[in-house]
Amino acid sequence: MKTSERLKALLEDKWKQYVRHNFVEMLRQGTLDKDSFRFYIIQDSKYVEMMIDSVIRASSLAGFKDSEKILRSVIFGRDSGMEVHKKIHSELNITEEEIKRTGYTLVNYAYTRHLYYYSTKSWKLFLSAWLPCMWGYSEIGEYTMNSPDHLYSSWATFYASEDYKSRVEVILEAIDSIPFSEDMVQPFSNSISFEIMFWDSALRKDRTDIMG
Amino acid sequence: MKTSERLKALLEDKWKQYVRHNFVEMLRQGTLDKDSFRFYIIQDSKYVEMMIDSVIRASSLAGFKDSEKILRSVIFGRDSGMEVHKKIHSELNITEEEIKRTGYTLVNYAYTRHLYYYSTKSWKLFLSAWLPCMWGYSEIGEYTMNSPDHLYSSWATFYASEDYKSRVEVILEAIDSIPFSEDMVQPFSNSISFEIMFWDSALRKDRTDIMG
Repeated sequence: MKTSERLKALLEDKWKQYVRHNFVEMLRQGTLDKDSFRFYIIQDSKYVEMMIDSVIRASSLAGFKDSEKILRSVIFGRDSGMEVHKKIHSELNITEEEIKRTGYTLVNYAYTRHLYYYSTKSWKLFLSAWLPCMWGYSEIGEYTMNSPDHLYSSWATFYASEDYKSRVEVILEAIDSIPFSEDMVQPFSNSISFEIMFWDSALRKDRTDIMG
Repeated sequence: MKTSERLKALLEDKWKQYVRHNFVEMLRQGTLDKDSFRFYIIQDSKYVEMMIDSVIRASSLAGFKDSEKILRSVIFGRDSGMEVHKKIHSELNITEEEIKRTGYTLVNYAYTRHLYYYSTKSWKLFLSAWLPCMWGYSEIGEYTMNSPDHLYSSWATFYASEDYKSRVEVILEAIDSIPFSEDMVQPFSNSISFEIMFWDSALRKDRTDIMG
């Protein structure tokens, strides 16, 4: 069994809680309130910024040979994603300034520092921590792309696109080139927990007073 | 004004919420329930372990000349603190095995990874992030040392001791040798927030399912 599949199989129940979370179901049905979505988009923007820093830092441990494809597709091939996000930001009236000014929720701070932590440890552990985000969104995109809400469907269509899928493939290829080991489970599993709590926090609209 | 005093003065209200938290007041009065205290002690033990890792990592940025005193007193001079903690662990029936087996609360995970994050950035920012913990406990120890509960008073007596105070002095000396700058405020302020949430989480007995 591939390393990625083995990881997911080990955490099957938790994975389901993540990709079929109530937030996701409401995106699909178009019933999610716009305030929660807006809240989520701002936190997600802060997340992506730290994620990119962590990818680059982890790449420095991997060396260019192993990280080249990932840097090329995920970091330097982000144009179409940025376009979709720009459109969503503008529809929701979210400015760069508001993203900067808004603090982190506790879970977003924990999650981004968790990624950063593993980005200083090893390429293998970083990939394990990073995979739930990239891989899960591919599933979520497909599941929600036919939402009757045009904002949610355009958000989802990006994550369901061939472009996004090809980025996930590159990450899966990288992790599947590494034999499975027990120490990959903890970063992978904790990241799924954070993804679940990330949806929860958007539905609750948690406090955002951790600066950064 | 000294750098440390300037930082505290800027966050005066928040500082008070931390060192006069309801948890602290109940320690002082001896009314804190033992379950919350036990919960706190286990999380604190996990915290201290990661804190020490972060101190050593940050010291590698500072160089031996600047970090020698801190390493000597805080890391290698921990004997009396370990003794008190061993006694408390044994009275509460807490084993090393239980500490390992218990996961982190979300706030403890966020806080320890926050410390770690700054330990890779700079000595100055690390000291700013670390100070609320070390300095605050000195105040809290003095405030609660006459608790009618013998467990709480022996816990507090350690943090009120000359031994502990001398460690805090070394850290204050280090930070006060650095001129105040605006970028110190964020790590310092976030750490106070985490300290407040740390008490909250012990009173609520938050979930401890983040592994590590």
